[in-house]
Amino acid sequence: MAEEVSNKQIVLKDYVKGYPKESDMVLKTSSIKLKVPEDCHDAVLVKNLYLSCDPYMRNRMSKIEGSYVDSFTPGSPITGYGVARVVDSCHPNFKKGDLIWGITGWEEYSLIKSTEGLFKIQHTDIPLSYYTGILGMPGTTAYCGFYEVCSPKEGETVFISAASGAVGQLVGQFAKLLGCYVVGSAGSKDKVDLLKSKFGFDDAFNYKEEPDLNAALKRYFIKKGWSRLACRERKLRTTSSSRDNERSLGNVLPDGIDIYFENAGGKMLDAVLLNMRNHGRIAACGMISQYNLEETEGARNLFCLITKRIRMEGFLVFDYYHLYPKFSDMVVPLIRQGKISYVEDIAQGLESAPAALIGLFSGRNVGKQAVVVAHE
Amino acid sequence: MAEEVSNKQIVLKDYVKGYPKESDMVLKTSSIKLKVPEDCHDAVLVKNLYLSCDPYMRNRMSKIEGSYVDSFTPGSPITGYGVARVVDSCHPNFKKGDLIWGITGWEEYSLIKSTEGLFKIQHTDIPLSYYTGILGMPGTTAYCGFYEVCSPKEGETVFISAASGAVGQLVGQFAKLLGCYVVGSAGSKDKVDLLKSKFGFDDAFNYKEEPDLNAALKRYFIKKGWSRLACRERKLRTTSSSRDNERSLGNVLPDGIDIYFENAGGKMLDAVLLNMRNHGRIAACGMISQYNLEETEGARNLFCLITKRIRMEGFLVFDYYHLYPKFSDMVVPLIRQGKISYVEDIAQGLESAPAALIGLFSGRNVGKQAVVVAHE
Repeated sequence: MAEEVSNKQIVLKDYVKGYPKESDMVLKTSSIKLKVPEDCHDAVLVKNLYLSCDPYMRNRMSKIEGSYVDSFTPGSPITGYGVARVVDSCHPNFKKGDLIWGITGWEEYSLIKSTEGLFKIQHTDIPLSYYTGILGMPGTTAYCGFYEVCSPKEGETVFISAASGAVGQLVGQFAKLLGCYVVGSAGSKDKVDLLKSKFGFDDAFNYKEEPDLNAALKRYFIKKGWSRLACRERKLRTTSSSRDNERSLGNVLPDGIDIYFENAGGKMLDAVLLNMRNHGRIAACGMISQYNLEETEGARNLFCLITKRIRMEGFLVFDYYHLYPKFSDMVVPLIRQGKISYVEDIAQGLESAPAALIGLFSGRNVGKQAVVVAHE
Repeated sequence: MAEEVSNKQIVLKDYVKGYPKESDMVLKTSSIKLKVPEDCHDAVLVKNLYLSCDPYMRNRMSKIEGSYVDSFTPGSPITGYGVARVVDSCHPNFKKGDLIWGITGWEEYSLIKSTEGLFKIQHTDIPLSYYTGILGMPGTTAYCGFYEVCSPKEGETVFISAASGAVGQLVGQFAKLLGCYVVGSAGSKDKVDLLKSKFGFDDAFNYKEEPDLNAALKRYFIKKGWSRLACRERKLRTTSSSRDNERSLGNVLPDGIDIYFENAGGKMLDAVLLNMRNHGRIAACGMISQYNLEETEGARNLFCLITKRIRMEGFLVFDYYHLYPKFSDMVVPLIRQGKISYVEDIAQGLESAPAALIGLFSGRNVGKQAVVVAHE
């Protein structure tokens, strides 16, 4: 007979409208046998070590239909990305003792029947928590969003909102490695300092202290003399050669945003549109400012997409997991060599998970928010 | 001595705010010598035959800075696309008697100093007015917007707003030639009839009679049983092969919009976003519903760009004129063989030009709006 143990779980009470609260989730204790039931082919039973708090989870707290993710089930444990140790397995690819990352439950032990979304952890010299972040879903998001969607080139100008978050901090470092000029926005002085000192951003600002986001972006992206150059550039029938000439004329300081990595939405997107360069690209990764609003803010400056020939493209990491091995091969050496940094904000214990998740939406976290459930 | 003749002109009185009126323009009569002045190297002097009324001209009536076009100059004749006969030339590529299309003045005779934007008309068995439309800027716009920006594939579903206009009617016919399912919106019963009978659209509707644009689009693009199929499709980690399977399961009727050719903006864009398929494409060509608003409407459903992985891309025809010969080689035979139709709305005489231009914004025109200034 398999050992039966108690199993603390974080359960969603009911669908959420508006701003989520800690009390929307409740801690329950049930029990679980540490063995995969006989009728569960290909399933694994895991002990959860780290859980990941990610902004997309807000959508799953609402009653949604026909979206790319399911709603959470009220009365059942929340699910999300995590790192776990395999306790028992009926799956040929996973054996007892293996470390995995992927979709698991917000509980101490989980029976995972959908194993297609699990990755075996190969590199254990790297902190395991990193597989909720830089080496997990957020890292893959940053990689495919920047390299596959943004079409970045050396010397281009990059702006990142929510830049100190799980994804943003990596996008900025990828862009610096490529030789871009990189500015980020974040929601506190500490985060702004982190962007400049730890992640090597060229500059950063606290969006909460900027009454005029358009003016803030102009400070970092529009050089003096811009109006003369940019107006000339934006005339009818401008050729790419004349654009190149103007870039070389104006290469001391940038004169607009080539790439915007969109995590914020709302007013920030509208301000960015006014400051994009011709032929710019916007990778839409998230719009966290809008997730808790009953009615979303409208983007009023979309006509800029036309006048500036901007490509705005939404993406989901799920379409890019086939690139995970390529991404991992690139980023693991960079981590080992200290060429890339990752800041985490790790809450202690499953009990702290609801507050950690809610904290994402007020920006309480500094860096990637995760929860440690057990130290092995 | 060159002959001096009187020259009627349409002059912009002052910069326009909000909805433009006929009285914002005034007819003046000046005089002009029918000879290129000696200090104007490479200039041509032309007799204008047709003038083109295009929505983008609204922007030029405002005081704008740093955009892709200049404002018109108050007190001077309006400029725009037209068809003209060369009366005198100092340019090696154009000789007296040549027919050209390109940027000219809203007047009987124009001295054109910027000749880079002029195209010599090669095919004179085709109505000359077509060079303001199907064989001019709007035709090239439709061609590059559809083939270069939309990445269309046979069997895809296409929605076009302002579909009976100078650009939309062509996009729809290109899409039908490729084997797409095509629906258009327009602003009157006559235009809707035209889309279905003349241009071969699969369906069409009058947006002015639809209190709920989302519901209207669902009528044409969402099949019964959609929710089951589309929900399955939109789940996490859908692979392209499973998408293809679902498409083949559901190929009797469409289940969303693959391609939206955006001419309208505002509420229509918001409704379209709700009805796009995963991996859809939006070519942003114009947003005519917004041009006369002091404050634009906001697009509230942009989060769909992310959940459905949509690419929305603005474009300007000026970036694609190098494709004009390729476009012309394709479309001229189609016109001659009667495989493509083009409906024009031609106002008589320069005096009627202001009303014709203003009419675009209330949708008074049926098809491409042009003005005949002289029949040779």
